[in-house]
Amino acid sequence: MNRQNEIQKPQLLIDLEKARNNIQSMLQKARQNQVVFRPHFKTHQSHEIAKMYRDAGVTAITVSSVEMAAYFASAGWQDILIAFPANILQIEHINQLAAQVHLSLLVDNLESIVFLEEHALHPIDIWIEVDTGLHRTGIWWQNHQHMLTCAQQIKDSQQLTLQGILTHAGHTYQANSPQDVIDRAEAGRSAMLEAKQYLQDHDCGEIRISIGDTPGCRLLSDFKGVDEIRPGNFIFFDLEQWRLGVCKAEEIAVAMACPVVSKNVQRSEMVIYGGAIHFSKEQVLYRGEAVYGLMAEKDGCRFSGILDEGRLLHTTQEHGVLRVSDSIFQQYQIGDIVLIYPVHSCLTVQAMGEYRDVHTGKTISTMVQQRTNDFIF
Amino acid sequence: MNRQNEIQKPQLLIDLEKARNNIQSMLQKARQNQVVFRPHFKTHQSHEIAKMYRDAGVTAITVSSVEMAAYFASAGWQDILIAFPANILQIEHINQLAAQVHLSLLVDNLESIVFLEEHALHPIDIWIEVDTGLHRTGIWWQNHQHMLTCAQQIKDSQQLTLQGILTHAGHTYQANSPQDVIDRAEAGRSAMLEAKQYLQDHDCGEIRISIGDTPGCRLLSDFKGVDEIRPGNFIFFDLEQWRLGVCKAEEIAVAMACPVVSKNVQRSEMVIYGGAIHFSKEQVLYRGEAVYGLMAEKDGCRFSGILDEGRLLHTTQEHGVLRVSDSIFQQYQIGDIVLIYPVHSCLTVQAMGEYRDVHTGKTISTMVQQRTNDFIF
Repeated sequence: MNRQNEIQKPQLLIDLEKARNNIQSMLQKARQNQVVFRPHFKTHQSHEIAKMYRDAGVTAITVSSVEMAAYFASAGWQDILIAFPANILQIEHINQLAAQVHLSLLVDNLESIVFLEEHALHPIDIWIEVDTGLHRTGIWWQNHQHMLTCAQQIKDSQQLTLQGILTHAGHTYQANSPQDVIDRAEAGRSAMLEAKQYLQDHDCGEIRISIGDTPGCRLLSDFKGVDEIRPGNFIFFDLEQWRLGVCKAEEIAVAMACPVVSKNVQRSEMVIYGGAIHFSKEQVLYRGEAVYGLMAEKDGCRFSGILDEGRLLHTTQEHGVLRVSDSIFQQYQIGDIVLIYPVHSCLTVQAMGEYRDVHTGKTISTMVQQRTNDFIF
Repeated sequence: MNRQNEIQKPQLLIDLEKARNNIQSMLQKARQNQVVFRPHFKTHQSHEIAKMYRDAGVTAITVSSVEMAAYFASAGWQDILIAFPANILQIEHINQLAAQVHLSLLVDNLESIVFLEEHALHPIDIWIEVDTGLHRTGIWWQNHQHMLTCAQQIKDSQQLTLQGILTHAGHTYQANSPQDVIDRAEAGRSAMLEAKQYLQDHDCGEIRISIGDTPGCRLLSDFKGVDEIRPGNFIFFDLEQWRLGVCKAEEIAVAMACPVVSKNVQRSEMVIYGGAIHFSKEQVLYRGEAVYGLMAEKDGCRFSGILDEGRLLHTTQEHGVLRVSDSIFQQYQIGDIVLIYPVHSCLTVQAMGEYRDVHTGKTISTMVQQRTNDFIF
């Protein structure tokens, strides 16, 4: 409790013990299933947290931007996949990266392949992105002919090497139950196996399969044919994963600490310093209400279970409106700190830019530079 | 078009000419109505943009956090109101600020007043926040007795000086028409006048009235009894204001520039590099669809009208899915730049952290430090 008393404004708390356990659990699963573990680092964006992965023996990583690749390359990471459709406008930085690390890029169209082939100055591994149901990017998994055209173009290139096919089955996030997550992930795996077979049958050489998404990687038990997994969110989890049945509340490794600045007894609401610029505006449906967060139980200076009678129902730039039960309302006074689980930890990390270690009170920085807090102080 | 060609990744474009015109227009309105113009600086968060206000003769400003007050104090602003319920946990920084500038704070509860009275080391002006319909913070406008209790407590204090009552009638954002905005703003003004009268009748001395919100300040024509206005968003406007009928499309002074990274002809969709961490997840309902942005017409290196057949329908961390008409689909190739108006410019500024001047290509920084883009480059 003492450490919480030092908190004066919205902070993102992290429980490194939980994060370490979450890493171990996913790593074990990857080892048991003999797949390469290439975790997505966009969730934490931090050198210090990345070190926990390195200590656990991880060497291959996934990132979501050229800048994020550069950030982790600067800490010595050497095997980096940018899991975002190659942005050909950044070719200069892509070339600088490829000169320094073993770089892998993602493509889903011929134009990008042709461009990369013409402009790449160093060897780059290429994955063809396949859409297995999310309908965001990627070649539709049944469109084997287009995949083949892309694969052949890559194979004819000097600097580009075809690694295989990759999917982010993010439609698992729209599942209605854990079984539904498994069914979607399983269908995605089958689709990938079929596409791989087609490409291999058409002289494309060995085609590897890479799959992403935390819900699928967590709940799927059969990884046959999969070569690599790229989950990211599992290190922290959040309310979205919890609602999907992907994690237990005790596994959520981050929570926001926010001061109470106003109370309204008629509406049984507390207003907190903590709004859209801290939590992000990501919502999740909880018992018929769209919430931006749910209260966490305080356990000393740590957080544990979910207090679902404390619901963050509205956020504006800096304000958050928390509807609470009578008993919670009585417990908290102006100037007290409430703890709230975020809906989407990746976006909350991006918004906050740094963590506070619940055990030591120390700040852990990220590539999102710390907000400037000390102009005159 | 040349300048756009230099853009390699998501950038927030600003047209300073439009912003300057928007400032002039609101300033004229304030002068005509003889109210103090205390613009909210949380929209732009920038010293350089603040200078445009200073050049126009503005001296009093509104901010949303203690840090933002410190940032603008460091550029010489001397009359600063923090329009967020006083966060008593930051008393040390509040005292440091109050030693340097003419500081005004907001309160809506007795606990905060008592705390400030006990801990303030320098004079601080105090506004009592009144809820005129937003139901976020503030004392309900009919609860005159509670307002009076607070007012008396402030008047009895040594360091605190009661300035008056303040409201943010943000429920104008839920209006269905411009007339509905006016009706809500008008009702808010009447409520404030009634509260003021009550307090003045009960020996509270002169009570000033401060009102906020861009929609109300823009559309209201009768400011009788109002002493001060604090709009912020009007400097840039955005899709939300446009949808409300508060501004014309040509007045929107910011737009996002985003590279096209993927195209899907079956769905008539383009995927852009530009997602939740760039636009924020703020949505607005447009013709029955929740959108995160609408395309802007390109006019040389500037943006003008709205292309409503280009709708940003989904965003994830870095991806944006833009559904477009056939003709737009044909016009854009992989690597081209699309321009998109944000739903809520304040949140997009916070997410992006810097602007690109459309006329000069120069970067304009904000207090949200620039993302670290050059670890190895």
